[in-house]
Amino acid sequence: MLNFSFENQTRIHFGEGQIAAITNEIPLDAKVLVTYGGGSIKNNGVYDQVVAALKDHTWFEFSGIEPNPKYDTLMKAQTIIKEHGVDYLLAVGGGSVVDGTKFIAAAALFEGDDPWDIVTKQLNINKALPIGAVLTLPATGSETNTGAVVTRNGHKLPFRSPVVRPSFAVLDPAVTLSLSDRQISNGVVDAFIHTMEQYLTYSVNGKVQDRFAEGLLQTLIEDGPKALQAEHKNDLEIRANIMWSATMALNGLIGAGVPQDWSTHMIGHELTGTYNIDHARTLSIVLPAVMKVGKESKHDKLVQYAQRVWNITEGSDAEKIDQAIEKTEAFFINMGMPIRLSDIDLGASDIDVLISQLEIHGMVALGEHQSTTLEISRQILNTAL
Amino acid sequence: MLNFSFENQTRIHFGEGQIAAITNEIPLDAKVLVTYGGGSIKNNGVYDQVVAALKDHTWFEFSGIEPNPKYDTLMKAQTIIKEHGVDYLLAVGGGSVVDGTKFIAAAALFEGDDPWDIVTKQLNINKALPIGAVLTLPATGSETNTGAVVTRNGHKLPFRSPVVRPSFAVLDPAVTLSLSDRQISNGVVDAFIHTMEQYLTYSVNGKVQDRFAEGLLQTLIEDGPKALQAEHKNDLEIRANIMWSATMALNGLIGAGVPQDWSTHMIGHELTGTYNIDHARTLSIVLPAVMKVGKESKHDKLVQYAQRVWNITEGSDAEKIDQAIEKTEAFFINMGMPIRLSDIDLGASDIDVLISQLEIHGMVALGEHQSTTLEISRQILNTAL
Repeated sequence: MLNFSFENQTRIHFGEGQIAAITNEIPLDAKVLVTYGGGSIKNNGVYDQVVAALKDHTWFEFSGIEPNPKYDTLMKAQTIIKEHGVDYLLAVGGGSVVDGTKFIAAAALFEGDDPWDIVTKQLNINKALPIGAVLTLPATGSETNTGAVVTRNGHKLPFRSPVVRPSFAVLDPAVTLSLSDRQISNGVVDAFIHTMEQYLTYSVNGKVQDRFAEGLLQTLIEDGPKALQAEHKNDLEIRANIMWSATMALNGLIGAGVPQDWSTHMIGHELTGTYNIDHARTLSIVLPAVMKVGKESKHDKLVQYAQRVWNITEGSDAEKIDQAIEKTEAFFINMGMPIRLSDIDLGASDIDVLISQLEIHGMVALGEHQSTTLEISRQILNTAL
Repeated sequence: MLNFSFENQTRIHFGEGQIAAITNEIPLDAKVLVTYGGGSIKNNGVYDQVVAALKDHTWFEFSGIEPNPKYDTLMKAQTIIKEHGVDYLLAVGGGSVVDGTKFIAAAALFEGDDPWDIVTKQLNINKALPIGAVLTLPATGSETNTGAVVTRNGHKLPFRSPVVRPSFAVLDPAVTLSLSDRQISNGVVDAFIHTMEQYLTYSVNGKVQDRFAEGLLQTLIEDGPKALQAEHKNDLEIRANIMWSATMALNGLIGAGVPQDWSTHMIGHELTGTYNIDHARTLSIVLPAVMKVGKESKHDKLVQYAQRVWNITEGSDAEKIDQAIEKTEAFFINMGMPIRLSDIDLGASDIDVLISQLEIHGMVALGEHQSTTLEISRQILNTAL
């Protein structure tokens, strides 16, 4: 196990009806800005529950935070914040709304000239408005972590700071019952690949971390496809297991003390930035190729993954690895996800563009060994054709 | 899954050399009281590392906190606290030192007449001195949780409050290399049974919690016995896995959203209170009997435990359960633990005393169903003869 420091200060309220907990979480004298996306929360009852919980608070609202939230959109919130003296943000939505709200929180107290510097210059952000989160789409883990991703002019870039970690997060699996199949699929696969980024590297004998990661992968494999089946559409237990898995997949715990990869994400971000592909659907295309190209460098962990997650006990190590990759692809297909560039109508001619975007963004030494050069990324994208 | 709220605000610094992290964790203007036990930290280098880390701080010390820390001992610290205006406690030791320090922290700011009321009246404690912890014996999980157990006149009683949760905890597995076999055994089995108390109940389909618990149990089963073997005595990876398992076993995570038992602990506490038996050695005696008496009420979880933790796939459910209990007992024996009352020279004639202690302490409806009456506790103790 590697040395590490770990903390996660977000208070979690999990379960049906827990939106009411925000009443006591946000100080009564706060001026709250409720941030959300396209308005689906007005159709599924979440907005009404939030309004009820805030009935004695002073609050305003800012809507229109889109998937892969855009800098220009987020900066519009600053006007409302200044006008009303907003001092608390309540993000109500999925990972994009929470990520966008993190940027709004940091930008509100940013003292430099251009808040975009927060992202491009990886500044040390030590002030932000406090944030609470009501999660409506389990996927990114943003509701309890310190990271966020913001997009501007096709550049999709991450930033992180402890001060943007939400103070509290409400996880009510009942609010996920109204999600579309595509949203569920994206969320399950996003959480799955977050786990893989922290697991499928090389062993440092971190047994707890490995087994926790394997437990999340198995849970998502078991309950992810069920959530799409008509007979389980209203099964709250399945939604609860998916929701808790997604939060645990990226709250810092399973990655503490072990090497991490994240090359699938960095390559995937370029697919989203350039072609506007759903985040998770870029990952399901890139990960199998990362596994294939990494058969040697990730050998031992691939075998462990085959044995423990997929219960593959027969055959040589190489055969186990091949079977495990096949099963991973079958799982993605079962979740309705693309697994090849051709599935989203991209081809060999697009790879040059993606590689040049990786270069522009400095993504020239990715992966747990920082050995995924642009040449290896090209090999990965070729493998994903 | 049951509804739950979860938080754990303790910052963890894990790994060799991390004691140095306390320099920046404790404010430089604090007046620190370093609390510890019998002085083993002066022989294994821990004391020197703490002194080096605090070289620019103002600090005092209070030693002599014994296993199963006693009220009378702990109250002696109040004099030093008042005399020097101590406003930060640094516990350096195992679970007993951390537990004792939690009581010292709460007692220092207690406004009632008798601090023992904190324990006996289960008061709502909302003030305590801040605490940091340097853990030397992985076992109780006290270093990141809100609970503590204090003993007075043979009464061993728990209390809990969010304000006594340590602000930070240093987990350096290297400091555990000097532990005796008995200390390692006690720690491993204590962590194992903490996990079982939150796992071996009835299913609420909490898949993440179950798999995390199983991962901890498997890790302790694999690495616990190795830590006692001569050829692994200096293996830091083994110590790291045990240390991280013990913290994760009782930091609130695996128990969030699932039913909990704790009857083994409550019955075990009477064995410690009355006969001064090491905490973990009471648990290794009581748990197998709790499993046997609970074959029906815990049936499904016992079968799951057999299959997933011990890989028992053959036989009927009843046979799997029997095998799993046998394997659990064999694991305890392998760890050098007693598994029967007769192993610690107690017999049928002692059971009346233990039952009357349980009655005095109000432990009349234990377990995940609150159905472990005094009569069932008697049955458990008879089964443990």
